[in-house]
Amino acid sequence: MSEVTEPKNQPPPEQPEVEGQTGPSKSELKKRAKAAEKEKKAAEKAARQQELDAQKSAAEVDYASEFYGTLPLHQSQSRPRQPRVDIASLPSRDGETVLLRARIHNSRAQGSKMVFLNLRQRIESVQALMVVAPEKVSKQMVKWAAGLATESIVLVEGVVKKSPEIIKSATVGTVEVEVSKLFLISGVEARLPFTVEDADRTEAEIEASGDQFNRVLLDTRLNNRVIDLRSQTSQAIFKLQAAIGDLFRQFLQSNGFIEIHSPKLQGAATESGASVFKVSYFKGGAFLAQSPQLAKQMAIAADFERVYEIGPVFRAEDSNTHRHLTEFMGLDLEMTIEEHYHEVMEMLDSLFINIFHGLREKFKKEIDVVNKQFPADEFKWREGPEGTLKLSFKEAVDLLVEDGVAREDLDDINTENEKRLGRIVRAKYETDYYIIDKFPMELRPFYTMPDPNDPTLSNSYDFFMRGEEILSGAQRVHDPKLLEQQMRGKGIDPESMKGYLDGFRLGCSPHGGGGIGLERVLMLFLKLNNIRRASLFPRDPKRLEP
Amino acid sequence: MSEVTEPKNQPPPEQPEVEGQTGPSKSELKKRAKAAEKEKKAAEKAARQQELDAQKSAAEVDYASEFYGTLPLHQSQSRPRQPRVDIASLPSRDGETVLLRARIHNSRAQGSKMVFLNLRQRIESVQALMVVAPEKVSKQMVKWAAGLATESIVLVEGVVKKSPEIIKSATVGTVEVEVSKLFLISGVEARLPFTVEDADRTEAEIEASGDQFNRVLLDTRLNNRVIDLRSQTSQAIFKLQAAIGDLFRQFLQSNGFIEIHSPKLQGAATESGASVFKVSYFKGGAFLAQSPQLAKQMAIAADFERVYEIGPVFRAEDSNTHRHLTEFMGLDLEMTIEEHYHEVMEMLDSLFINIFHGLREKFKKEIDVVNKQFPADEFKWREGPEGTLKLSFKEAVDLLVEDGVAREDLDDINTENEKRLGRIVRAKYETDYYIIDKFPMELRPFYTMPDPNDPTLSNSYDFFMRGEEILSGAQRVHDPKLLEQQMRGKGIDPESMKGYLDGFRLGCSPHGGGGIGLERVLMLFLKLNNIRRASLFPRDPKRLEP
Repeated sequence: MSEVTEPKNQPPPEQPEVEGQTGPSKSELKKRAKAAEKEKKAAEKAARQQELDAQKSAAEVDYASEFYGTLPLHQSQSRPRQPRVDIASLPSRDGETVLLRARIHNSRAQGSKMVFLNLRQRIESVQALMVVAPEKVSKQMVKWAAGLATESIVLVEGVVKKSPEIIKSATVGTVEVEVSKLFLISGVEARLPFTVEDADRTEAEIEASGDQFNRVLLDTRLNNRVIDLRSQTSQAIFKLQAAIGDLFRQFLQSNGFIEIHSPKLQGAATESGASVFKVSYFKGGAFLAQSPQLAKQMAIAADFERVYEIGPVFRAEDSNTHRHLTEFMGLDLEMTIEEHYHEVMEMLDSLFINIFHGLREKFKKEIDVVNKQFPADEFKWREGPEGTLKLSFKEAVDLLVEDGVAREDLDDINTENEKRLGRIVRAKYETDYYIIDKFPMELRPFYTMPDPNDPTLSNSYDFFMRGEEILSGAQRVHDPKLLEQQMRGKGIDPESMKGYLDGFRLGCSPHGGGGIGLERVLMLFLKLNNIRRASLFPRDPKRLEP
Repeated sequence: MSEVTEPKNQPPPEQPEVEGQTGPSKSELKKRAKAAEKEKKAAEKAARQQELDAQKSAAEVDYASEFYGTLPLHQSQSRPRQPRVDIASLPSRDGETVLLRARIHNSRAQGSKMVFLNLRQRIESVQALMVVAPEKVSKQMVKWAAGLATESIVLVEGVVKKSPEIIKSATVGTVEVEVSKLFLISGVEARLPFTVEDADRTEAEIEASGDQFNRVLLDTRLNNRVIDLRSQTSQAIFKLQAAIGDLFRQFLQSNGFIEIHSPKLQGAATESGASVFKVSYFKGGAFLAQSPQLAKQMAIAADFERVYEIGPVFRAEDSNTHRHLTEFMGLDLEMTIEEHYHEVMEMLDSLFINIFHGLREKFKKEIDVVNKQFPADEFKWREGPEGTLKLSFKEAVDLLVEDGVAREDLDDINTENEKRLGRIVRAKYETDYYIIDKFPMELRPFYTMPDPNDPTLSNSYDFFMRGEEILSGAQRVHDPKLLEQQMRGKGIDPESMKGYLDGFRLGCSPHGGGGIGLERVLMLFLKLNNIRRASLFPRDPKRLEP
């Protein structure tokens, strides 16, 4: 048996009659009174019938009473060791009686003798049906099943059967489950702010429906993140987030990097005092690390040679934009260099190419799922002999000037011009991924190594995806005297960072590195348009919950 | 050419003469004056000779001046692409001319024509020697090399030669490097608080020397962590720390877990208000997460099914013990359960067995390095048909009572009794690793699921290594009503955790999990005796630096 889904077109809400300033006519009033009387009688009749039905039904012995109902609270009462199956495995289980735990994604009663349940496990779903059958499934059982709320968690026993035609409303469409037992494990005790179906609807579907479907806004999603995260799109996004972390680690480990964990509680503000969160620390104070920068460098001074860290990064910037979070995941690395900081830059470049390949090759399904809701041009990068596009800061400025931006506005490249550059680069070089090298020294932090030939330039680079920065990095100053001098130049008292400076006084190899924003890479690869979609429980100046 | 290391036994400090109350005799005074005069003349002669030598040496043309010296500050001036080699690879390079960057671990001049350098890269070291040779190595060059400070970073060019006998003072003892060029990359501009040799010295060596070696205390190490981390012991400890994280991830990923990253900034205090750090958050306040507990559970309510997180955990406990940190790495996991919370407990047990095996099999070398400085009985666990020892809380109490502890002191098992239990268990069951299940409900947090038969007990467990807790976990309450009730029972206002409660009101599968302290596992596996040794830059109530 199969079900073809119909769009849930609801009738448009009734409009109040508008008759100018005059009230209804006398004959109209009479007509209405008659209609009301008729309606009342019909209602009374229906009520009587319902009562009779109820009496009859109560009189009927429920032969299925053992086969359905609400389970007692799961407190690990027993362990019969009956295996549960995944919905994804059902196509290979034709004819088997299976047991599975799933959510009711939606349900539809067909008269009083049959109910269709769409059962969901993460991104997989299957159609189940329950049909009245003597000694097996009672009418009461069907009625109870039909009354279960969307998003209830149930334990289902049933037989897997080949479906006569592909069921389009389920991801597993070749089979369905004929339910023999159904128990409620966990019910829904709150009004759903929106359904998971709503959450997964594409803009195209909403528009095609003439805006009759619920368009779930980002804030509503984030306020009810637990429901939003159940959507196919979210499940895919966070599988991809985990994948980026894995690809990052695998690549670095195969290149001799070791994972470190540096403290987020700092005795002194790192990097810049302006955007640091203060913490009460017993009788004193502490700060939250704005990056693992100093610790990574100390690890280099301690001869770790190549280190990486995946950890939270805190920025007390009051930026309410599509790409700023107050807490995000930093993918950081630092390594010694032998001859040239391009050794690090090239390592980072290979790392990204490796991540892009890994995502495209191993996670095509998840990317496709996200693309349905967030359509995007396929992410492009260059490979082979030409390799990744590398522009100097000066060349990037020239491209913008050629495109009509006034040169005097380009001491720094602001967000708007960054995006514009992204469009220029895509048109000219057919890539969404590129590197800008040799930033002006004055735009970079005190620990950046100046260029050997032009002291106004630095040995530093940013990486971009679709016109937005995803990585910032550089060769660092490993000489304590120059470091002190550059601190003073940026108004930082070297005494306030004595521990850090001492690390270099004890001898430190030349080194460089970079920091990647995990959520930015995820957002830009998938074109999610807002970084909050790429963070499990995002934090911004206005959001600390859930 | 080879060098056999001799212990650096220095003569005992001179003792002042003690001659009772009488002063020296007249003849004695005369003898002394004569000796002093002789000494003075000798010194004058030596000074004259030195001056002559200097004049002569200045006059001599230094034919090797191109082959040594201090390099200009490394600013990535050029990139000739000359490969550097690892010390570990030298045994297979006999006869090759190699280039390598290393630290001077120590050095010893042999007259004015030869100097031995012990070169170090992380845990590997090799002997290098520089010998005066016409047109190649000058006396000036040898003198300069001999004057380089310990811990200087140098670029060395030399020829690899088989050493006639094994060099015991280096980890790579079968070859040595005959130096032809030597350049200083980074010098030491501060007094070393201790040497890396001191840091690696074992207690047995110190005792055997009659306490003539410097015994480096833990606080000195932590104050100068950058040097301490260069020691073989530290390098091995942090390789093992990274290994535990990897083994944790690999095992969980192969069991269908997905990595999540939950926010450390929280709108409300989680778990308990007493030990939470407060953060200034723009115009309001926030708290640092005491664990990812709530977020992990929300991920379960969002159908992630099996999640893990590796991230910092913050505890504002003013505990200055060997096993408390204010910030540590939590290895957390949470998973849905079908029938019984022992599904999670068994998953965690398999995880630990997998970690123990992985460490012992793949990191034997590192474990042996650490054992040299921290001797410990080999870590024991049970396997095979008997499996891991699992005691109920009641059984654990009985064991302690049998051993002589008063039962009335055992409402909770304090640290001292925990350790005592560890000793009892090791003696009786020959294991350093075991589980205690079924803790009294009153000892556990509000989100713990009560036992189905005895409401004073709970479905919760702790895991132990060498008599110390390394994991705490339980089945959680997934029912919002019971959760509210238990919150009230612990004096928590359910309104203050509305977001969390709402997650369960939207339907949540039965689930359980646990949290592991990474540094504790590392400390106890290796018996480091203090958790600070297992943390890169440890944080405790009195330490926020470096």
